[in-house]
Amino acid sequence: MALAFLAVSPEAVQLLTMMLVVFGSAKLLAEVMERFGQPGIVGALLAGIIIGPSALNLVQPNDFLHALSELGVMFLLFRVGLEVKASELMKTGRVALLVATLGVVVPLLVGWGILASTGHTAIESIFMGAAMVATSVGITAQVLADKGLLQHRTAQIILAAAVIDDVLGLLVLAVVSSMADGALDIAGLVTSSAISIAFVVLVAKLGTPAVNRLLPKMRGGLRSQEAEFGLALIFLFAMSLLAVYSGVAAIIGAFLAGMALAESVERRVHSLAHGATELMVPFFLTGIGMQMKLDVFADMKLLGLAVAVFVAAVLTKWLGCGVGAWSLGRADARRIGLGMVPRGEVGMVVAQIGMAKGAISHEVYAVAVFMAVATTMAAPPLLNWAYRGLKDSQAPVETVQ
Amino acid sequence: MALAFLAVSPEAVQLLTMMLVVFGSAKLLAEVMERFGQPGIVGALLAGIIIGPSALNLVQPNDFLHALSELGVMFLLFRVGLEVKASELMKTGRVALLVATLGVVVPLLVGWGILASTGHTAIESIFMGAAMVATSVGITAQVLADKGLLQHRTAQIILAAAVIDDVLGLLVLAVVSSMADGALDIAGLVTSSAISIAFVVLVAKLGTPAVNRLLPKMRGGLRSQEAEFGLALIFLFAMSLLAVYSGVAAIIGAFLAGMALAESVERRVHSLAHGATELMVPFFLTGIGMQMKLDVFADMKLLGLAVAVFVAAVLTKWLGCGVGAWSLGRADARRIGLGMVPRGEVGMVVAQIGMAKGAISHEVYAVAVFMAVATTMAAPPLLNWAYRGLKDSQAPVETVQ
Repeated sequence: MALAFLAVSPEAVQLLTMMLVVFGSAKLLAEVMERFGQPGIVGALLAGIIIGPSALNLVQPNDFLHALSELGVMFLLFRVGLEVKASELMKTGRVALLVATLGVVVPLLVGWGILASTGHTAIESIFMGAAMVATSVGITAQVLADKGLLQHRTAQIILAAAVIDDVLGLLVLAVVSSMADGALDIAGLVTSSAISIAFVVLVAKLGTPAVNRLLPKMRGGLRSQEAEFGLALIFLFAMSLLAVYSGVAAIIGAFLAGMALAESVERRVHSLAHGATELMVPFFLTGIGMQMKLDVFADMKLLGLAVAVFVAAVLTKWLGCGVGAWSLGRADARRIGLGMVPRGEVGMVVAQIGMAKGAISHEVYAVAVFMAVATTMAAPPLLNWAYRGLKDSQAPVETVQ
Repeated sequence: MALAFLAVSPEAVQLLTMMLVVFGSAKLLAEVMERFGQPGIVGALLAGIIIGPSALNLVQPNDFLHALSELGVMFLLFRVGLEVKASELMKTGRVALLVATLGVVVPLLVGWGILASTGHTAIESIFMGAAMVATSVGITAQVLADKGLLQHRTAQIILAAAVIDDVLGLLVLAVVSSMADGALDIAGLVTSSAISIAFVVLVAKLGTPAVNRLLPKMRGGLRSQEAEFGLALIFLFAMSLLAVYSGVAAIIGAFLAGMALAESVERRVHSLAHGATELMVPFFLTGIGMQMKLDVFADMKLLGLAVAVFVAAVLTKWLGCGVGAWSLGRADARRIGLGMVPRGEVGMVVAQIGMAKGAISHEVYAVAVFMAVATTMAAPPLLNWAYRGLKDSQAPVETVQ
């Protein structure tokens, strides 16, 4: 009869088991990693690999987990945005532009070169280059937030460069995609680039003053419970949606939404956003891990290629972005270069599009996904090392009571 | 070309549009309701009706929204549990038991009688009675939490009675279900009741001392960020799952989990849980509204039945539970009776099972759903009235910085 009750809500059992396994394993392995002196974030990524289809197959990626994962990275960047002042970020403009540009050009050319020189087709080669372009800044932002270093000048440059990088990366993807389709639409490219750039520049420039002016006026009139937090979340969803419509990633919209609110929103909203983010982020991290294809380990030749692409993906950002930030001195240039290493979900999206268009083989897809996950896992320990002196010298920025 | 970019992530557009419409409309109408002096919760329920299939059809109920809705009510009761001391709740034992028992028997008999006397089959009549039994305590808890009255003795009795009510309600459902199947398994019923009762009693009695003993020991050893909040959420998911396995609703597990943690968890965990809850609850409220069947308005006879069932559903809890709490005086008895009125998602589950078993017609299903949604919407204004004197005399319990 207890079983008859169970039949009442098999979906409840399924949902709760999934929440428990995903969230629990992420937190457990994060704790284990911290004990080994490594960032907890690596543990959460590892949890995704272990519970996912590649290993134990306890949880299969599904629409619900995918949606939670997308929301997770949006909340992550929203929270980061809340700690960043637009005026400070703007100051980094010139260096950030150089970091982003070199961080796009160098990986693109090297990735292209590696595949072309190992007998892959031209379109496959250029797709791999494109997959190596886009930085997934969420991982770096999380590591720096955990260390309380979001106000460090290198953090500001990494964030600004990541926004520019996203616009450039989507431009590269558009070119590569239309090459795969066999038709390069120059006028369309120019239009869409203009829209993307206009969105980012307008929101970054006008977001803060607009919110600073409007929010205090609205605040007085609001009567419902936690109205300001509700308003902040509506703004987050709206800006993320607008970003997607403008051809930019949703996370860029989320980051810009947070930044626009940063100066005028109540401290309480930061606390509440922190709680929502803590709930959602593990689903983003495990979601990346679950995508991992261990297929590449089955074939020595493929494994060789995967390792080569992974190493190139690390070095090209490290050196490419590092040269762009050379004027700040060697230590900060290294920090910025390593901060741009994770490719995460952005690299995977490029590989998925390549697969969908029939432009890349299953093997090259597996290599690209391996590169995306491996760079994401390699970055936190590398950042740990690059920022080692600073780790304890500053208090955490987030100060929820 | 901007459209070509869009094709990159149609799911992102879909996801974000859904988040924006559901969350935004809930918050907007909550604000409107507050301006009319009504609880915001009614606005969120109304938003669900308006955006759902019955009216504008902007959003269709889907697996993702359903899952968010289930998590929403769990987080709601978890947060309520965090504000409740097990020892205080236990003191209400005898009154709560009487309130729960009368609140089960009276609606069951009256609902049964109304349908039987209007020419419905015996099994249909008893299913309607069963649908009128179960209280959805989340709505009342939210209203009282918003008023800062969770520590009021009536709130404690409502919560305790709702837990007992859930166990009794599932027992009634089991009996009714097995009658629909044509076989009453007495031994099975006794076993499953024993398991449900054992789970509730054990967790309510031993949860707090166990957590009080273990948590301080674990706390010292934890190194990852927000480890205590992570631990609390793992406990929430685990206890909710265990509740379902024990034949009790997930929300009862969530409530008991919160209550077990209430005394020993850091204040910071309350703040973070509050943020996560604020994000999720609107999906629960709109989810109930979206289920509303306006079909009943198409047929005058059916509408008459729906109104009769709705009025009976309000009066039977008000009077039944009120009589159970008569020893506390008339004002508190009224508060407790009205606090047990909302049937929400619990009433709908009973109706869905009746449909699935072929025991009730589509019309009776529509009437049951109407009753569940209408009682849920009627309760907050009625509670507003019943607690009117107390509204401003106490500070809110939740004090996030």
